[in-house]
Amino acid sequence: MNAVITLTTDFGLDDAYVAAMKGVILGINPEARLVDICHTVRPQAISQGAFILSTAYPFFPAGTVHLVVIDPGVGSERKAIIMRTPSAYFVAPDNGVLSYVVNDCSTKKEQLETISITNSRYWRSPVSTTFHGRDIFAPVAAYLSLGHQPDDFGERIASVKTLQFAGPLQNPDGSINGTILHIDSFGNLITNIRHCDLPSEPGKILTEISGRKITGLAHTYADGEGLIALMGSSGYLEISVKNGSAGDMLGAEVGDSLLIRKIAG
Amino acid sequence: MNAVITLTTDFGLDDAYVAAMKGVILGINPEARLVDICHTVRPQAISQGAFILSTAYPFFPAGTVHLVVIDPGVGSERKAIIMRTPSAYFVAPDNGVLSYVVNDCSTKKEQLETISITNSRYWRSPVSTTFHGRDIFAPVAAYLSLGHQPDDFGERIASVKTLQFAGPLQNPDGSINGTILHIDSFGNLITNIRHCDLPSEPGKILTEISGRKITGLAHTYADGEGLIALMGSSGYLEISVKNGSAGDMLGAEVGDSLLIRKIAG
Amino acid sequence: MNAVITLTTDFGLDDAYVAAMKGVILGINPEARLVDICHTVRPQAISQGAFILSTAYPFFPAGTVHLVVIDPGVGSERKAIIMRTPSAYFVAPDNGVLSYVVNDCSTKKEQLETISITNSRYWRSPVSTTFHGRDIFAPVAAYLSLGHQPDDFGERIASVKTLQFAGPLQNPDGSINGTILHIDSFGNLITNIRHCDLPSEPGKILTEISGRKITGLAHTYADGEGLIALMGSSGYLEISVKNGSAGDMLGAEVGDSLLIRKIAG
Repeated sequence: MNAVITLTTDFGLDDAYVAAMKGVILGINPEARLVDICHTVRPQAISQGAFILSTAYPFFPAGTVHLVVIDPGVGSERKAIIMRTPSAYFVAPDNGVLSYVVNDCSTKKEQLETISITNSRYWRSPVSTTFHGRDIFAPVAAYLSLGHQPDDFGERIASVKTLQFAGPLQNPDGSINGTILHIDSFGNLITNIRHCDLPSEPGKILTEISGRKITGLAHTYADGEGLIALMGSSGYLEISVKNGSAGDMLGAEVGDSLLIRKIAG
Repeated sequence: MNAVITLTTDFGLDDAYVAAMKGVILGINPEARLVDICHTVRPQAISQGAFILSTAYPFFPAGTVHLVVIDPGVGSERKAIIMRTPSAYFVAPDNGVLSYVVNDCSTKKEQLETISITNSRYWRSPVSTTFHGRDIFAPVAAYLSLGHQPDDFGERIASVKTLQFAGPLQNPDGSINGTILHIDSFGNLITNIRHCDLPSEPGKILTEISGRKITGLAHTYADGEGLIALMGSSGYLEISVKNGSAGDMLGAEVGDSLLIRKIAG
Repeated sequence: MNAVITLTTDFGLDDAYVAAMKGVILGINPEARLVDICHTVRPQAISQGAFILSTAYPFFPAGTVHLVVIDPGVGSERKAIIMRTPSAYFVAPDNGVLSYVVNDCSTKKEQLETISITNSRYWRSPVSTTFHGRDIFAPVAAYLSLGHQPDDFGERIASVKTLQFAGPLQNPDGSINGTILHIDSFGNLITNIRHCDLPSEPGKILTEISGRKITGLAHTYADGEGLIALMGSSGYLEISVKNGSAGDMLGAEVGDSLLIRKIAG
């Protein structure tokens, strides 16, 4: 079956761990289409991995299997899970790395179904205690891509671990406190503020970050000079600078805060 | 259709932007063969991306679609284009990133045809103002790979933006001034001097760079000791050092100059 | 033919050399499944490349063609070879990069067959003296993946170049001297000590490294606090630290030594 399987890990690019998983998958489903999402998630950085995954998975065809292995608890009591949404499958440790998927389903009022992976029949044997990616997650993803049903792999569970997201905070005076979720490789600061969080007249906002003030919203990265704020391609407010890095200019880090105010106009 | 689509971007490896484009492509053409050319072009470095592309595209099968997204002007008035040569399609912003393709066609006296992408029917909707790679270029590449004709996507245009290449300069005394186009990850210095630019007896040349002199041309990276000059695999004169980095040894940078003289023999 | 071809090189991720090889392969076998093992092997680091390859190749389906281009002697008199084991093909320079493959076959008492690649009929023409990866190895791998027999490409040879491996050393007092083979991107120190090298009661061992002592063997990376020793997924003893880098903690480097002692219990 010609299904797509994506891979997101913190394995880096200097080792062969990702390739070992791909070898296992192709041994089970030689027709699988393998697509890397990202392998340079910082080691053990579950929330970063969760965010990166969230910016890519919505663009894949229905039925795609997303294999996500950021798994500091490998070999411990943490569960391994399959999550099925109306349009995709996710295979991952139950450690919060699918939190955005859960959130997105909740926002869209979509049903999701979660299976605890317990049926060792689909695993490699013996299972390494340190590399479930290769010995459990990869073969489960491969068999899912062949049309096996999630229920074949274990039993349904009612809840999964999710990260606490710091959503933007609406202040009594109408201003909004936000934080930086991610800094991309261009140095764009991606915040946790979505379009629906902003006042209805976006020309009339003032963004304060690191002691700098940005008036209004730009439309493109090439607009204006200096710092700009704009709605980015993932649906979040971003702080950017034309042909430069806002991250470097501001010395910004993930978790830094910003403030949005209405301005009179 | 089992066509090859290559991807060249400045998106880096730490984000999921490349994966989002691949997801969009596979949703339109599930059979497309996706091949990464390079994603670590420096942000907004159009000339570097143009060079990298030029060293790979000639080796792909006829009919390959090359998707090139180094696009600092995204969302502005710069055009999006399809370029068709006798053997390939290119989908890119009209900012000079296809300059080597234009040059190569001109050298080979091949016809090329350029279309301004204006037919929004093939785009994702809505189109993000900051990520045409995902919302315009990727779907256009995918539909091209399915056999849609370039003319389906917009109207022909007569000219495109090209970079000014500093070709090597022949001096009245017969010597040649060249420059470094690229430094590869081995530290090889790739110059803008081609074989046809050199005197007919290559054993009788002297290369001067950074105050160092190199006599004659070597045949392999393992030849001799210290600095060597040789004709590299992309057809350009390279300066190298056995089991070391010529770039580090000379503190060289892209744009540095070198001089080639004939020597008596 | 839908065969898998893997690629392992020291070409880095910033150039298009890997892509040029992939273009050549797809021109010969449009159905080949291309999988990257690793391209960030340090330049000319044959032993590192040999190790990385060894941790991935056993997990690929039977008949996979492994293309390995770490080739400081390109263009010189070093041979180009095809090695056939009962389950895979390897295409590489004869410089020791297949040493673990040879070792593994010897341990498993499997036959291997080696061909010196001399039949230029399968090469690109002309052959660059500096990029046999593109002009010889890639097309040979592609034709092998189409079902051509190794003997079509040249004549059998009786021996290949192999690296001297420093196996662990059993001391007269029952202790074992080992060395670090590899440090992965998590900072795990992968040693040359296998399970069969250890005393039969692994709870009763003491590992000494960089002046630190580690008692017993852990089962998972999440076990205990501080430094742990455990059997890793590639079959070697590893030194690790929970949610941290043992490499950074100890300032360890490849080639550093460690000592394993039995402890009374």
